[in-house]
Amino acid sequence: MRVALDVMGGDGAPGVNIEGALLAAKEIEKGDTIYLVGPEEIVKNKLSEFKNASKFDNLEIIHAPDVIGMEEPPVDAIRKKRKSSIAVMAKMASKGEADAIVSAGNTGACVAASQLRMRNLPGVNRPGIAVVFPTKTGPHVVCDVGANVSCKPINIYQYAIMASVYSSQMLGIEKPRVGLLSIGEEESKGNEITKKTRALLRDDEDLNFIGNIEGRDVFKGVCDVTVCEGFVGNIVLKLTEGLVDHLFGAIRDELKKENMLFALKFKGMMKRFYKKYDYHEYGGALLLGVNGTSVICHGSSVPRSIKNAVLAAERFTNKQINDQIVDWLSSRPVETPQ
Amino acid sequence: MRVALDVMGGDGAPGVNIEGALLAAKEIEKGDTIYLVGPEEIVKNKLSEFKNASKFDNLEIIHAPDVIGMEEPPVDAIRKKRKSSIAVMAKMASKGEADAIVSAGNTGACVAASQLRMRNLPGVNRPGIAVVFPTKTGPHVVCDVGANVSCKPINIYQYAIMASVYSSQMLGIEKPRVGLLSIGEEESKGNEITKKTRALLRDDEDLNFIGNIEGRDVFKGVCDVTVCEGFVGNIVLKLTEGLVDHLFGAIRDELKKENMLFALKFKGMMKRFYKKYDYHEYGGALLLGVNGTSVICHGSSVPRSIKNAVLAAERFTNKQINDQIVDWLSSRPVETPQ
Repeated sequence: MRVALDVMGGDGAPGVNIEGALLAAKEIEKGDTIYLVGPEEIVKNKLSEFKNASKFDNLEIIHAPDVIGMEEPPVDAIRKKRKSSIAVMAKMASKGEADAIVSAGNTGACVAASQLRMRNLPGVNRPGIAVVFPTKTGPHVVCDVGANVSCKPINIYQYAIMASVYSSQMLGIEKPRVGLLSIGEEESKGNEITKKTRALLRDDEDLNFIGNIEGRDVFKGVCDVTVCEGFVGNIVLKLTEGLVDHLFGAIRDELKKENMLFALKFKGMMKRFYKKYDYHEYGGALLLGVNGTSVICHGSSVPRSIKNAVLAAERFTNKQINDQIVDWLSSRPVETPQ
Repeated sequence: MRVALDVMGGDGAPGVNIEGALLAAKEIEKGDTIYLVGPEEIVKNKLSEFKNASKFDNLEIIHAPDVIGMEEPPVDAIRKKRKSSIAVMAKMASKGEADAIVSAGNTGACVAASQLRMRNLPGVNRPGIAVVFPTKTGPHVVCDVGANVSCKPINIYQYAIMASVYSSQMLGIEKPRVGLLSIGEEESKGNEITKKTRALLRDDEDLNFIGNIEGRDVFKGVCDVTVCEGFVGNIVLKLTEGLVDHLFGAIRDELKKENMLFALKFKGMMKRFYKKYDYHEYGGALLLGVNGTSVICHGSSVPRSIKNAVLAAERFTNKQINDQIVDWLSSRPVETPQ
């Protein structure tokens, strides 16, 4: 098993990524390799800063001189910067030289490169990004959070199948309950897309479909998988991040006014709290539906998230989750290609 | 000025609503009247429980024997239950017997009744619900949060105009900054609807349009008005409510484990915190675009929210906000009716 890691992606690159790779190198299975993809000199120099780096024989540098910036237009960047770390990784995957790719860089570029190079799994019309929301009642998978802005019902139906396989195989949830994000529980509530999607979800007996859910249910633990179109899922993901930051910041400000000692105590408590709700634990988001393993990490990843993303990529590949997705989809009536 | 209040709507009806009406009766302008709309016997009995009720000569009971349940299909309910409080209020408004209506009942039924009876303002294709999010940097209006599930660009453009007038006139914000909710700041980011809407917003020189905003910006104070289609806005509203409840619940649980005294101190702090972020302060959401004043309250309204909703209805009417909306829209090139 060979995981290619983008050394140049994310706010903390290259240091955070190298540190994460070293953490992962300790834990990956014997015989597995992590490819460090980036400009050779930079990777080498950064590696030399870590004393223990030379101990590992499961790290290998792959030279990729170019870098795609976080704000570059994805498709353009992929076409023009063929020697960027993201483009090189995707090409390696397409040629069978890597089994999985991991990047904390430009999300759009990762999606575009993965789609372009790896192609879709048989039976999948459009890949979707699956993110794990840590909640009180357990991990909750939301798909799609932005790969596919304007979905057709068949896309969302396929997300439900892919995310169900992901939830059961990667998170150990038996018969994951699937909810369709809409604006009311009743069948009549929603837009044209959700109404048509609902019928597809309901008719698949292998799905544990519980019906529509509302925004307020996302953190209630009423289901294990939530599906929606990428436009909505992206807003849900970013609103959640923004609101959590905003609330904790506001609470902190309020506490400081009150009593510094109280604020410090609270800080300790919040650290433990954050740990429980920590998305770094899940490392990254899987791009479900491509013929390979593509893990997209948060731009603000820390070494632990990079490590967990590499380990998630390894597990996703070893568990042959894509085979299970293809198997499920192959026994479904084929829809007109979208 | 006559405000009709639905005595039977909401989780705390009729008690909370009557209590709210009594609070409002103390504060409304001289000569103004609050109509208490509901089954006469129930309203009378409930009123008699409040000692000070007989002191007010600005309260009047309007008999409406039927009640529309929170879960009833809105349009059906409005058509069948013509003597329900909501239907009676909307009819009063349409006949000029009431200047404003306020309800904490079935939101869909309120929207349907208002649209059906009051009709739209000249130049408005579809009304939208405007909700105020209390944020650190001030009140932030989001429109539409669920009146119009599938919007056309012209609808969202009109929401921007209506919500701008609302923000400046009701909340005192000069030249409110308008953001379009999408999934990236760049012009190229978003779906077909947002791309077309963006062009309309950009071309209106009287709008203070700042461009696309993302989910994470909603609570950042980057704009004063956010526009989006009802499907997305409804998910944003409910996700926010659900996430706030979830986080505060989780923090409380964590604190209890730690130290009861600490938890109690935190409770006091949270009360003050809640006060600052309290949506009850704004009373209710305005249904912008109908030819009249229609205020929709949260189902879990408390007496203070009902009071504030009645006062908001009075202010919205007195400030002739609808005239300003009509004025702005009349000077705009007319779009093909949607």
